[in-house]
Amino acid sequence: MEKVVIAYSGGLDTSYCAKYLSKDKGFEVHTVSVNTGGFSSEEIRKIGGNAEKIGATSYTNIDAISSFYQKVVKYLIFGNVLKNDTYPLSVSAERIVQAIEIVNYAKKIGARYIAHGSTGAGNDQVRFDMIFQILAPQIEIITPIRDNQLTRQEEINYLKANGVEMNWEKAKYSVNKGLWGTSVGGAETLTSDKPLPETAYPSQLQVQEPKQVSLSFTKGELTAVNDEENSPEKNIEILENIASKYAIGRDIHVGDTIIGIKGRVGFEAAAALITIKAHHLLEKHTLSKWQLQHKDYIANWYGMHLHEGLYLDPVMRDFEAFLQSSQEQVTGKVFLTLHPYRFVLDGIESKYDLMNNGFGKYGEENKAWTANDAKGFIKISSNAGKIYQYVKQEA
Amino acid sequence: MEKVVIAYSGGLDTSYCAKYLSKDKGFEVHTVSVNTGGFSSEEIRKIGGNAEKIGATSYTNIDAISSFYQKVVKYLIFGNVLKNDTYPLSVSAERIVQAIEIVNYAKKIGARYIAHGSTGAGNDQVRFDMIFQILAPQIEIITPIRDNQLTRQEEINYLKANGVEMNWEKAKYSVNKGLWGTSVGGAETLTSDKPLPETAYPSQLQVQEPKQVSLSFTKGELTAVNDEENSPEKNIEILENIASKYAIGRDIHVGDTIIGIKGRVGFEAAAALITIKAHHLLEKHTLSKWQLQHKDYIANWYGMHLHEGLYLDPVMRDFEAFLQSSQEQVTGKVFLTLHPYRFVLDGIESKYDLMNNGFGKYGEENKAWTANDAKGFIKISSNAGKIYQYVKQEA
Amino acid sequence: MEKVVIAYSGGLDTSYCAKYLSKDKGFEVHTVSVNTGGFSSEEIRKIGGNAEKIGATSYTNIDAISSFYQKVVKYLIFGNVLKNDTYPLSVSAERIVQAIEIVNYAKKIGARYIAHGSTGAGNDQVRFDMIFQILAPQIEIITPIRDNQLTRQEEINYLKANGVEMNWEKAKYSVNKGLWGTSVGGAETLTSDKPLPETAYPSQLQVQEPKQVSLSFTKGELTAVNDEENSPEKNIEILENIASKYAIGRDIHVGDTIIGIKGRVGFEAAAALITIKAHHLLEKHTLSKWQLQHKDYIANWYGMHLHEGLYLDPVMRDFEAFLQSSQEQVTGKVFLTLHPYRFVLDGIESKYDLMNNGFGKYGEENKAWTANDAKGFIKISSNAGKIYQYVKQEA
Amino acid sequence: MEKVVIAYSGGLDTSYCAKYLSKDKGFEVHTVSVNTGGFSSEEIRKIGGNAEKIGATSYTNIDAISSFYQKVVKYLIFGNVLKNDTYPLSVSAERIVQAIEIVNYAKKIGARYIAHGSTGAGNDQVRFDMIFQILAPQIEIITPIRDNQLTRQEEINYLKANGVEMNWEKAKYSVNKGLWGTSVGGAETLTSDKPLPETAYPSQLQVQEPKQVSLSFTKGELTAVNDEENSPEKNIEILENIASKYAIGRDIHVGDTIIGIKGRVGFEAAAALITIKAHHLLEKHTLSKWQLQHKDYIANWYGMHLHEGLYLDPVMRDFEAFLQSSQEQVTGKVFLTLHPYRFVLDGIESKYDLMNNGFGKYGEENKAWTANDAKGFIKISSNAGKIYQYVKQEA
Repeated sequence: MEKVVIAYSGGLDTSYCAKYLSKDKGFEVHTVSVNTGGFSSEEIRKIGGNAEKIGATSYTNIDAISSFYQKVVKYLIFGNVLKNDTYPLSVSAERIVQAIEIVNYAKKIGARYIAHGSTGAGNDQVRFDMIFQILAPQIEIITPIRDNQLTRQEEINYLKANGVEMNWEKAKYSVNKGLWGTSVGGAETLTSDKPLPETAYPSQLQVQEPKQVSLSFTKGELTAVNDEENSPEKNIEILENIASKYAIGRDIHVGDTIIGIKGRVGFEAAAALITIKAHHLLEKHTLSKWQLQHKDYIANWYGMHLHEGLYLDPVMRDFEAFLQSSQEQVTGKVFLTLHPYRFVLDGIESKYDLMNNGFGKYGEENKAWTANDAKGFIKISSNAGKIYQYVKQEA
Repeated sequence: MEKVVIAYSGGLDTSYCAKYLSKDKGFEVHTVSVNTGGFSSEEIRKIGGNAEKIGATSYTNIDAISSFYQKVVKYLIFGNVLKNDTYPLSVSAERIVQAIEIVNYAKKIGARYIAHGSTGAGNDQVRFDMIFQILAPQIEIITPIRDNQLTRQEEINYLKANGVEMNWEKAKYSVNKGLWGTSVGGAETLTSDKPLPETAYPSQLQVQEPKQVSLSFTKGELTAVNDEENSPEKNIEILENIASKYAIGRDIHVGDTIIGIKGRVGFEAAAALITIKAHHLLEKHTLSKWQLQHKDYIANWYGMHLHEGLYLDPVMRDFEAFLQSSQEQVTGKVFLTLHPYRFVLDGIESKYDLMNNGFGKYGEENKAWTANDAKGFIKISSNAGKIYQYVKQEA
Repeated sequence: MEKVVIAYSGGLDTSYCAKYLSKDKGFEVHTVSVNTGGFSSEEIRKIGGNAEKIGATSYTNIDAISSFYQKVVKYLIFGNVLKNDTYPLSVSAERIVQAIEIVNYAKKIGARYIAHGSTGAGNDQVRFDMIFQILAPQIEIITPIRDNQLTRQEEINYLKANGVEMNWEKAKYSVNKGLWGTSVGGAETLTSDKPLPETAYPSQLQVQEPKQVSLSFTKGELTAVNDEENSPEKNIEILENIASKYAIGRDIHVGDTIIGIKGRVGFEAAAALITIKAHHLLEKHTLSKWQLQHKDYIANWYGMHLHEGLYLDPVMRDFEAFLQSSQEQVTGKVFLTLHPYRFVLDGIESKYDLMNNGFGKYGEENKAWTANDAKGFIKISSNAGKIYQYVKQEA
Repeated sequence: MEKVVIAYSGGLDTSYCAKYLSKDKGFEVHTVSVNTGGFSSEEIRKIGGNAEKIGATSYTNIDAISSFYQKVVKYLIFGNVLKNDTYPLSVSAERIVQAIEIVNYAKKIGARYIAHGSTGAGNDQVRFDMIFQILAPQIEIITPIRDNQLTRQEEINYLKANGVEMNWEKAKYSVNKGLWGTSVGGAETLTSDKPLPETAYPSQLQVQEPKQVSLSFTKGELTAVNDEENSPEKNIEILENIASKYAIGRDIHVGDTIIGIKGRVGFEAAAALITIKAHHLLEKHTLSKWQLQHKDYIANWYGMHLHEGLYLDPVMRDFEAFLQSSQEQVTGKVFLTLHPYRFVLDGIESKYDLMNNGFGKYGEENKAWTANDAKGFIKISSNAGKIYQYVKQEA
């Protein structure tokens, strides 16, 4: 019997795939979920239970939180990546790592097929399929929902007819949760003019009292929250727990999909936004002007290519080498205050701070250079402009 | 008698210059202030009064609000320019226009000298002097404070000895106000770790009740607030009046000065931040993916060069041509809600909206292409990656 | 009878299409060739004759040389665009304009179909189809060769069976000629290690004696050759006639196709290369440092997007606005010498020359600034570096 | 007695400095030359002899060829850096390394001063002084020529008066030789319109017969010439010996100096140009499209910053990390043919060649995808353009 690995979420689409591929197609079905921070143990147990009910030969949950952090999130922080200046790429980043884990699993168990529940309309099919095809061209991809354009009702009927009865009620919003944020799509996000209602966001405001937090970075990585050290991915979770009670990090991303149409999606990503903004502030104190300027270019493109599923392009490794190198002195502590729905960056402390270092004081009388030095500097800095004006007037 | 034009603010430094240059140096002193949105009529009258007391031959206030908008602010909006992702360049943008106005005035009245009150420590001397030297190489620049490194007390004593007695008490914070925001420096901003206290900011929270606002843009320019049409510069002032009551737009900018050291300065710029973020959202709906991507590069550099006093470099005109061209379809209305200390972008409405246009619906079943089209797209999009992996494994 | 417009070259593939679509499919066949500089009147007459023999209802040749220059070539010169630093994009630039002309023609005569002879393997199908679909989504595209994957022999047999007997001998090299260069593919270009033989190139060395030539540019456009004024497109032809006798401008382009695989193609483009290099030299004398730096970024992307068929993306208009603006002072004369297989740029003369203008002399003693100015400039330019080293050592 | 280290070339200016600083100023004078490939042993012996005659306490030649290659040249090759698309930065690259070697030497022997012979007019003073100040802020810089604005005759008279009589005849051209090329300035280069005469170039045409050469690269480094392995720096010298007999690599660089004025300088750099062009060709076969595109941006800036003396800025280390990473698969052999005054790249051979690898054949019938895949690819690639046109027409 041929083995198929299904990227399995426990939802209607992948449940349909599991049943359909085992029963109608006669495959040995191995269901796999990849946890990039969105599933609790409880949920994983439930997903596994469903897989069993449907008749999957096996169910495996792969814990990919560390791998997600090491492969992608780390560089998104180094680059302060916010797509269109807003969105931390919560979902697109996750998909990449999920696809890599699945294809590795499929290779390990010798599967000839990988199946997933994507339709033909979105971005995720592109991200998944590109990585599957590139890393395992010998493995065939099966996508029953995309190929057969089934409606939800048809899927439910099929499952029922095959003895699978579960509650498939469709949620008003499609929610995707992970280490780097939660996306919320549906209803208002299908319009251009309406915001999501408060209740659509997963976290609700629970605390009013402002709270001070410190984030410690070591070579660009979040190594402690409030002076308590943990792995960066654990610190992100800790920060999320603290900050989500303030309903921080909500926004709506509007952007271009890989397939060329505009999309709009809500998200909530307290830890991602706070970490990036705090990290960026620390960089403003510890990086040179030119590092800040050129990092922007690189991070912008790193985000763009990642979003479009090009994670495996070798240029991404080159960008990562740049970003890693740039973090050499991004070490220090950032102080911030959480308020309902917002946070304020209070300041930083770093032995690499290029500002308060006794060398010279900006805006105050200074010793490092004289008025004449300044005048010489300005005079020579004006040379090009003077020549240009002179030539323009003479011509 | 030789004429000198003094860039005059009515403060201690420029008052000293006025007295010193008329009395000790025997110049015919013409004091000029350039209003880029920071002065009320009351303040202008007061500055003029001071100039008179000190014995200036003339005082002129140049209303440069429109010129400031047309020359610089417009392009900062087109480019969504926030230096280091934070600062709308409130002060650096202003200085450029002030310098141009002053040099034009000096040429008009046939002055041989221009004087200003900058020290040798900051950025403003560079911005002023570069523009003076480039546009009028024949005019000599005089900077008594920079050249003589006088202390405040020495200046006060000199003025007193010459019969000028005013209240020169130094404010705790140095505040600079203009159309595009107010900067606040001093005390905490000289450290890296301390935020400014609430009271240091010019506007205090006055309203708690959230308020909905609509901003209308026509080819990228802010043409109406709440459907009431006015000139863009007037609309910025109207928006500032509404939003500053919510204490919106406060932050601290950390960045590199032209002279190579890091600086930190607080600012409050409700209208600037809201306008930029609203404009950017409208662009996400109306510009192509590639316009959004490349505009970022150009706007980043436009801001960098402007900040460093290179406004007169011809590349700035080329950037402006790009930015102007990009705004062709940036027309529509942006809806937002003001809250204490923050605002939320609710959505947009535009006949140029590339999203909700009936062409195809993202995330839903669609008609514009088939599953097979999607698979063909993905297959060919994977070609380069497949070849790369194949070659890498074979090598 | 439904009308179909065929992009017709008179070759085997498009002849097959013409016959097949009229006879088997019952269309009213309108054949169109678009001359972007590659066809002589003689050739056009011959293509028309063939169309008649095959039984086309009409044959039209569209003279698109000026349109090609105005729409694309002009900006390629402004940007000094050489793909991968080598290739003037001779073919990709042409295809865009041919597609636009054809779709406009089809709309004009009310055709419901456009047909072309591309296979499914190359870039041209992408460039053609994208422009057809975008400018006329209501017109259907027919590509018999691509769809039916016919061999040459099958096509010949079909034509013979339908009474069309011509000489369809396949040339060893596939040659494509136009205003902006001639591409040469086949045999050696299918390998990575072999150069094309001399004889494969369309122009052979005819003159040994070096010859001096002057090119005059006005706002970036080639307005005279050897002081004789003509339209820029005419001047390119005149220059090509002179320079191709020296066998100048041969090279091999290696690059990425739109469909993700590497390609290699020979080309000969004497006028294109000389014009670009001469224009660039004039720019080095007349543009500011920052114009030169940022133009590179923009031109690189203009070439990339053009190559990939994105000519209609609005960002291209924004790039063109930048490029046009940058040419304001690119006026002057460039002197060069032609030698067999190469040319030497001798120098330029321009009233906008920023170099020899009496302002200051580089490398010689100078008057525009003093030794102390230079030392002040250097001291302050070193500030950032000094602080960085200081902090690094203290940390 | 205070020690001063003089960057000593044996020429008039530095000889004057040596005498002046020892005799008039009473310093203990340590003369140092740094060989970055320009000096033969014979020349070094002569320079040392002169130093002795003038009365220097010591003379040291530092062999910095390998250090020059490792610190700078390597990355210029990785980046295919040609300033303004022409100039391999022969001199600017050298100056950096010379300055670093001198400052290290000065620190080692405990010198309190460094002296050099630059005037106040050029770029070299900036490159030297910035590196001296940044790496050793405690060491003072002495520049007698710059400070005293001496004429050549005054220097000669002083030396003669102090018993130093040598032949100080001024060459018509100022020539600077090094591993990465030889610059030639003077006479014609002070105009905009005249080329250098053949005789001004250091190498004269000696061979007419074309010659085939192969260059082997390993991870981007030139590891063999004609299959003979040597260190990269040695290979550059070997290649220079072969190619300079063909008078290859001559051109004139026109560009912006650090101090804001345009400069023009001739150069001859056969090995540099051939190595860069060969390396670039190999990259076109072995790097992804995106690597090629983004490397251009980075290399452009690496060259710009290097040219302007910013070698020590940490962003340069980040760029180097990117460039190093990008060379992972740039391994293979490049075939080329030398002709008088020019060379032709014939092709490459590499196990990492992304072109001829059996995956799919460009321009020929192919197996990797079907006509329908291509049509799906094109259809979806057209989505954004279609929507844009649709919206534009409806608006």
